[in-house]
Amino acid sequence: MKNVLIFGTGSVGTVHAMLLQKAEARVTCVCRSTYAAAKASGFTVHSTIFGTQSFRPNIVKTVKEAVSEQPPTAPFDFIVVCVKALETGDPGQSPPRIIEPAVRRGHTSIVIIQNGLGVERIYHDAFPDNPIISAVTYLPTAQTGPGTFSHSETQKLHIGPYPAAGAGGEKSLEKTRTFAGLITAAGGNAVVHGDIQIERWKKLIGNTTWNPICALSGCRDLEFLEASPELAQFFIINSMREVVAVAVALGYGEHVNEDAIKMQVDRSKARNWPGVEPSMLADMEAGRPMEVETVIGEVVRVAKRKGVDVPRLETLYLLLKAYNGKLRLKCDSD
Amino acid sequence: MKNVLIFGTGSVGTVHAMLLQKAEARVTCVCRSTYAAAKASGFTVHSTIFGTQSFRPNIVKTVKEAVSEQPPTAPFDFIVVCVKALETGDPGQSPPRIIEPAVRRGHTSIVIIQNGLGVERIYHDAFPDNPIISAVTYLPTAQTGPGTFSHSETQKLHIGPYPAAGAGGEKSLEKTRTFAGLITAAGGNAVVHGDIQIERWKKLIGNTTWNPICALSGCRDLEFLEASPELAQFFIINSMREVVAVAVALGYGEHVNEDAIKMQVDRSKARNWPGVEPSMLADMEAGRPMEVETVIGEVVRVAKRKGVDVPRLETLYLLLKAYNGKLRLKCDSD
Repeated sequence: MKNVLIFGTGSVGTVHAMLLQKAEARVTCVCRSTYAAAKASGFTVHSTIFGTQSFRPNIVKTVKEAVSEQPPTAPFDFIVVCVKALETGDPGQSPPRIIEPAVRRGHTSIVIIQNGLGVERIYHDAFPDNPIISAVTYLPTAQTGPGTFSHSETQKLHIGPYPAAGAGGEKSLEKTRTFAGLITAAGGNAVVHGDIQIERWKKLIGNTTWNPICALSGCRDLEFLEASPELAQFFIINSMREVVAVAVALGYGEHVNEDAIKMQVDRSKARNWPGVEPSMLADMEAGRPMEVETVIGEVVRVAKRKGVDVPRLETLYLLLKAYNGKLRLKCDSD
Repeated sequence: MKNVLIFGTGSVGTVHAMLLQKAEARVTCVCRSTYAAAKASGFTVHSTIFGTQSFRPNIVKTVKEAVSEQPPTAPFDFIVVCVKALETGDPGQSPPRIIEPAVRRGHTSIVIIQNGLGVERIYHDAFPDNPIISAVTYLPTAQTGPGTFSHSETQKLHIGPYPAAGAGGEKSLEKTRTFAGLITAAGGNAVVHGDIQIERWKKLIGNTTWNPICALSGCRDLEFLEASPELAQFFIINSMREVVAVAVALGYGEHVNEDAIKMQVDRSKARNWPGVEPSMLADMEAGRPMEVETVIGEVVRVAKRKGVDVPRLETLYLLLKAYNGKLRLKCDSD
């Protein structure tokens, strides 16, 4: 039986906890805001794909508590990181430092299910002897109450070793397959990739553009398009082309290309008015810090390094970075 | 004695009312939000250049009331428009329609003191037989209370006929000189230009860039620069270069160029932390509609027409346009 720790029990973390428990793993969830509700009643996920599932993993308040419950002979096999990827001012508060007590050197695999680019680096630096597994999920979910979630439309986990197979990630590849096996055993959808970065870039085409655009304009995707019918459609495609140009400079042109853009554009077009609310817009409206650096900052930095001109992305990035900084000042002074 | 109607008694309108009254014009001010205070106590301007001045022009609530007070033998010589240049959904509420009762066909000169581009067109279309005078002001002022204002640092009015002299504006040029004469008679600074659009473009270098950037980032100019020290300084200059490229395509390259950019950049650098709050940021923070179309929309449209690539300005414009539209919906439903 696999021992799994879920770090970050928002909707993505909870749906994966549900799948892993279905696959008969021993699942422990670190809960902060949802601790009381989850300890009392467990979690409930209303899913159009998996049905309504109520389940009770081990619920703990801290990583330390999770470790104290585990016998030393049964260390965690996987730690699944599903928290937001934010810059932390205090290095002692960075996720690798927080999960450290639960990481058995050379044994525990760290599975990072986060959006954006460059999210794996801090874990690889902190745990150079542990398998690092990187994942991209397509999972439309929302928290509907304390410990309750809704999920619909699709569930797909793209997963691969970090670094990529062929670049030093071979020892992580086997663990990647094991983890993917748990998801598929639960009836879920998981695809193993030798180089997961291709999938990251494909998803970035949509995320790097729509997330900042929706947050800054205060609009959902279709509302933004409607506001400037003659210009906005071309603008979105040109912005997506900037993302693709960076991916091409990194050698991903075979997979990250005009076809991938078309898929993103068609996804928006198929939606009902007023379209989706990307997480960054939800964060902006709630006054929460946004995942600026991983979703767009890192793309702009890679572009600079590779000499790719990304004026639209750079504009979006600098506006958000300044906005986020101002927000942090406001939160600190509250 | 010249009869002058001031339409829009924010800080710019009030300081000009003060100067025109000093020049012994008969000044009538249309006041909306400040009516009660101005009717009771007149206006007071605390200026580091003109000293503290209290004055009482004729105060009226509506243009109709202004017209009813004037004998038919003494029509308004000048109507000075100092309201914000906003899109109005209802054509009956457009400024030309509102001032129409005070416009004597073929006689009244309409002086437009507004930021941005293309602000004169609706007045020229509405009153093709009247002199249209276009002005750009450098006038750091703020409203400090009902009917009270502060003013400091500089006062400069660049003014010229619309269309430009040589393009049909000859008959307006004489009236432009008369109006400028009133300002200088009051000890003010007014410069007459044959083609005022050159001055509009020079000011746009700063306004088209900083106004949207500060509004969208929620930051003053120096705060925005500080948030991304390595990137933001180049970004601002590249954005200003897009404005200049459009002006160059229109034939203004002799005056609107790298030197004009340098002047703008030096102005920011000379400021004290946290820098200035452009009007668009103040409007954004107060939830008021912003002058999006004249300050940046028109620049983007001219760029498209002339085939000039302006990716940064286009990004800023589309974000603001969508934000403004969402804001209008919210205001309508309140």
